[in-house]
Amino acid sequence: MNNLWLTVAAILVLFMQGGFILLEAGSTRMKNAGHIAGKTIFTVGIASLVFWAVGYGFIYGEGNAFIGLSNFFFGDFTSFDAEGTTGSVDFFFQLTFAAIALTIAFGGFAERGKLAAYVLFAVLFSAVVYPIVAHWIWSDAGWLSSLGKQDFAGSTVVHLTGAMGALAATILLKPRLGRFNKDGSPNEIYGHNQVFTALGVLILWVGWFGFNAGSTGGVADGFFGYVALNTQLAAGAGAIAALFIVYALSGKSDVPTMLNGALAGLVAITASCAFVAPWAAVIIGIVGGLIVYFSMKFFDKARIDDPIFALSVHGVAGVWGTLSTGFFATPQLAEMNGGRPGLFYGGGLTQLGVQAISVIACGVFAFIASYVILLGIKAVLGGLRVTEEEEIMGLDISEHGSYGYPENMQAEIDKKKTGA
Amino acid sequence: MNNLWLTVAAILVLFMQGGFILLEAGSTRMKNAGHIAGKTIFTVGIASLVFWAVGYGFIYGEGNAFIGLSNFFFGDFTSFDAEGTTGSVDFFFQLTFAAIALTIAFGGFAERGKLAAYVLFAVLFSAVVYPIVAHWIWSDAGWLSSLGKQDFAGSTVVHLTGAMGALAATILLKPRLGRFNKDGSPNEIYGHNQVFTALGVLILWVGWFGFNAGSTGGVADGFFGYVALNTQLAAGAGAIAALFIVYALSGKSDVPTMLNGALAGLVAITASCAFVAPWAAVIIGIVGGLIVYFSMKFFDKARIDDPIFALSVHGVAGVWGTLSTGFFATPQLAEMNGGRPGLFYGGGLTQLGVQAISVIACGVFAFIASYVILLGIKAVLGGLRVTEEEEIMGLDISEHGSYGYPENMQAEIDKKKTGA
Amino acid sequence: MNNLWLTVAAILVLFMQGGFILLEAGSTRMKNAGHIAGKTIFTVGIASLVFWAVGYGFIYGEGNAFIGLSNFFFGDFTSFDAEGTTGSVDFFFQLTFAAIALTIAFGGFAERGKLAAYVLFAVLFSAVVYPIVAHWIWSDAGWLSSLGKQDFAGSTVVHLTGAMGALAATILLKPRLGRFNKDGSPNEIYGHNQVFTALGVLILWVGWFGFNAGSTGGVADGFFGYVALNTQLAAGAGAIAALFIVYALSGKSDVPTMLNGALAGLVAITASCAFVAPWAAVIIGIVGGLIVYFSMKFFDKARIDDPIFALSVHGVAGVWGTLSTGFFATPQLAEMNGGRPGLFYGGGLTQLGVQAISVIACGVFAFIASYVILLGIKAVLGGLRVTEEEEIMGLDISEHGSYGYPENMQAEIDKKKTGA
Repeated sequence: MNNLWLTVAAILVLFMQGGFILLEAGSTRMKNAGHIAGKTIFTVGIASLVFWAVGYGFIYGEGNAFIGLSNFFFGDFTSFDAEGTTGSVDFFFQLTFAAIALTIAFGGFAERGKLAAYVLFAVLFSAVVYPIVAHWIWSDAGWLSSLGKQDFAGSTVVHLTGAMGALAATILLKPRLGRFNKDGSPNEIYGHNQVFTALGVLILWVGWFGFNAGSTGGVADGFFGYVALNTQLAAGAGAIAALFIVYALSGKSDVPTMLNGALAGLVAITASCAFVAPWAAVIIGIVGGLIVYFSMKFFDKARIDDPIFALSVHGVAGVWGTLSTGFFATPQLAEMNGGRPGLFYGGGLTQLGVQAISVIACGVFAFIASYVILLGIKAVLGGLRVTEEEEIMGLDISEHGSYGYPENMQAEIDKKKTGA
Repeated sequence: MNNLWLTVAAILVLFMQGGFILLEAGSTRMKNAGHIAGKTIFTVGIASLVFWAVGYGFIYGEGNAFIGLSNFFFGDFTSFDAEGTTGSVDFFFQLTFAAIALTIAFGGFAERGKLAAYVLFAVLFSAVVYPIVAHWIWSDAGWLSSLGKQDFAGSTVVHLTGAMGALAATILLKPRLGRFNKDGSPNEIYGHNQVFTALGVLILWVGWFGFNAGSTGGVADGFFGYVALNTQLAAGAGAIAALFIVYALSGKSDVPTMLNGALAGLVAITASCAFVAPWAAVIIGIVGGLIVYFSMKFFDKARIDDPIFALSVHGVAGVWGTLSTGFFATPQLAEMNGGRPGLFYGGGLTQLGVQAISVIACGVFAFIASYVILLGIKAVLGGLRVTEEEEIMGLDISEHGSYGYPENMQAEIDKKKTGA
Repeated sequence: MNNLWLTVAAILVLFMQGGFILLEAGSTRMKNAGHIAGKTIFTVGIASLVFWAVGYGFIYGEGNAFIGLSNFFFGDFTSFDAEGTTGSVDFFFQLTFAAIALTIAFGGFAERGKLAAYVLFAVLFSAVVYPIVAHWIWSDAGWLSSLGKQDFAGSTVVHLTGAMGALAATILLKPRLGRFNKDGSPNEIYGHNQVFTALGVLILWVGWFGFNAGSTGGVADGFFGYVALNTQLAAGAGAIAALFIVYALSGKSDVPTMLNGALAGLVAITASCAFVAPWAAVIIGIVGGLIVYFSMKFFDKARIDDPIFALSVHGVAGVWGTLSTGFFATPQLAEMNGGRPGLFYGGGLTQLGVQAISVIACGVFAFIASYVILLGIKAVLGGLRVTEEEEIMGLDISEHGSYGYPENMQAEIDKKKTGA
């Protein structure tokens, strides 16, 4: 039964890639849509093969507090662990998480990164960056695991690691053409399809139940339903809080901000869903929804281009989520799922400190490792970014040889030719 | 195991919101697409938080035959009911149904309702209208439940209630500009994307297995597979019947009508899936598919604008579905799942009468309650509808400040400017 | 528990139809998008009703080595088979496979087939062609089953049969206007939406876990997780291999080719997922991804129009997949799941021979039967193809009376009128 639930959860997490296809394509322009949608498919391919070859071994193999070093080219289908989960089921479930982290990291490349640069980055990020962070927190031998880090379903491991990869990429690649004026003021580059974006968020929301509730690992006690309930409340609260704040401060019920609020609620509850009460899930979601709005403003001010909001949604909300269990973890649930109660339940600052250390350690490592990898790729390829001309033309035609929307783009081109 | 199936079913029902995003956006115009897709996300948010705060308590709390009055701000994750379903799992499953009813009710606001009016309606409908109907039928204490009402998965509770909310809204809001000529003859306002519509229907179809088969509550006896089979046959029969009738009577194999036929088959079988034989499921679906065609014509004649066909699909087909078990319920299945056999099995008119009473009582209550709520909102906001200018401009830009499809809409605007 | 998993798997396979909506609509032109998306819905309807009426009986009824002849109009919901699977659950699962084969066969009609011709073909293909092949291989009484054919989840039954139907149709219908020049050189007809195509592939990928892992039939031993793992690796390997070969040979990272590579990996592993080691799954996927590229080139050379790549993806990769178990089946897994070990494990040529015979027998039968059916339909309807004028106009308007994208198409028409 645990195998069944884990497999269903893995399928849901894999389906989240469909949400990312829609979210990323919808948040960017028509001329890059085929590129962005297509790269998600081979991203899953690369993440799967690399995870199979080395990633799983680096995370769960026998090794030391820093990295695992066995179990490469996983091929075992007979072993059962203590709770009766088949090795291959657990492997498949873990694999889908690794692919999500890589997809998040892509956000930093959007609309201007060379295809070859991203492919090389995808291999190295999946092989080295993600597995090391995952080993620290999720392997029993990992040093943060030994400190009692609470990261139920990967606020840090998946979301923060992916966002740090995206941050390294977006800093090195520099902002998209036209995103910031010479005086530093930002121009909005509108995504081309909010139906895609909204549907993408809904699919991610649905898939998150695999992410969070799947991470209970078993179904015997019905606890995964509780995790699902917390997840649902935080997501809803995030959407409403973001809609409220953007309307209150800008007078516009901006749709993308509201959608990011829902995602921020989901990211934030990812670490804490198994540790907090439903009312706390609502608060964690609300704070997530508010924080994502201010974070989007902050990156605009800092002249950091975050095309798909990976930094705000997965990074900042991921940090908030990781810290939140240090505040809200109840004694009963902390005892049940590991770690200590939070500050608000008299648990003191210990758990909050562990959470903070892990955010800093993992964030810094993931950022630096990604940065170094990208510098290496830049040296090899002679640059990470397409030419200005190619960027204006769009990556569909320049990197892949055909438009994602040939009929719409042809209409555009015709119009320009006739001078309209 | 029941917990597992119920959670999967809840996830499927949540996924139906993705179907509604596509169905609703696809059935309306490009200038409102971002609004319609986006509002689905915060609809789920509002429905979730309100259901948690008060909705669940009004339905299942201790109270009287009319309403429940305890269990607000649900936070229990330890209780198990008699069949071993965890409270939080059941809560999550029920929550997803409440969100569907609200999404259906939105249909009456489409393309012209003020955002603020819908938000207020969403809160009040979720807090009061839906829970009271659900209490009547699904709580053991409810007065229709005591009469032996058969509504297996919510033909009445979810679909009819939602459709009555939509009816109240569409009557008060009046038809969209240009929908009817001065002489009362209708103009078709085409939806902008049939791929969205068709995919939306497929996703709803898929999600319906959570709706219907999930309502078996348990999996011990494999009965949910039988429910799934009936659901599949009715949906297929509805699609084919609608395609046949529209071709026979209009000479055109109209795609939206055929799609509505599939949905009508699904809505119709929702009440009866656990009570009838497969051949009856086929007939119920066929009648659903035929009835939806004539219903669409009727609302056109009656000058009632039903942009997303909520009245025909969820209302009229929902009534047919609720009545159908009064005809087709087999003795064996009625005994197993409650209620009495149908007319065609010698059960007489008793069950049919109970079904009819419940349709009338619930329909009248949901309509009047929604109507009164909307009158109150109208008084508070000074109107329910955007201005004529805003409606022409589209709600994306007027209510949210940016187009759902900025590149396509810009092309439109450019074209108009150049006088083409 | 087996019932639960089979039902979830059936829902996943049904969801694959959503993948086909997107894949097929995305791979074709805007003027046919409503037609193609819509027909998928009634395709499922036809396949469901026909399977219920006669298809299931022809496959699993009592009969002879060639066809089953009982169990029509399936209505049983009480029987359990030996492993405890309820009859209705198994029926529903099987039904979803039949609908996939028909959807694949549609590929041969795309963008030019008369609606009426396809509807008649759909009924007859579902009633006769698919059930007979399925009986041969999946019924215990079938003659290929008796020979020890390994077709775990339908590389031959579903994919090859569907592709042969598509081949018959595309040959009789002849290529789309403008697809080949007079000298035989091909023109690419670009699909209109790569986001749809990519999302379609992802949904198919997700649904495939119902297809393959669902075919284990039970969950007791966690073996379905192993099958899922093999499926994931083959799909990823197929995508990467196709991306590599198209880049290496054409200098372009063509997105549709890469997407077809992922599908080819999935089709290829369908027969072998339960018989091979993970490393072999990677190789089977790589070969699938390479083979689909060369197959696409071959059909171009042969002047056979394959609009949605059904022949290459489902046909050629299906054959490769069926043969692959003859090479790679391990002794341990062959013993566990039936048949003999493959050539590379010292199993000799026996299993490879059985696989080859079954490919030839099923392929030839499905092609000839489909061809004869289509000749009959052609005689009855006076042709299988719309007129040249209708084809240029698009099937949305000519067969269904309204465009799938009325606003986009109106813009096109306006442009042409003004002579731009």
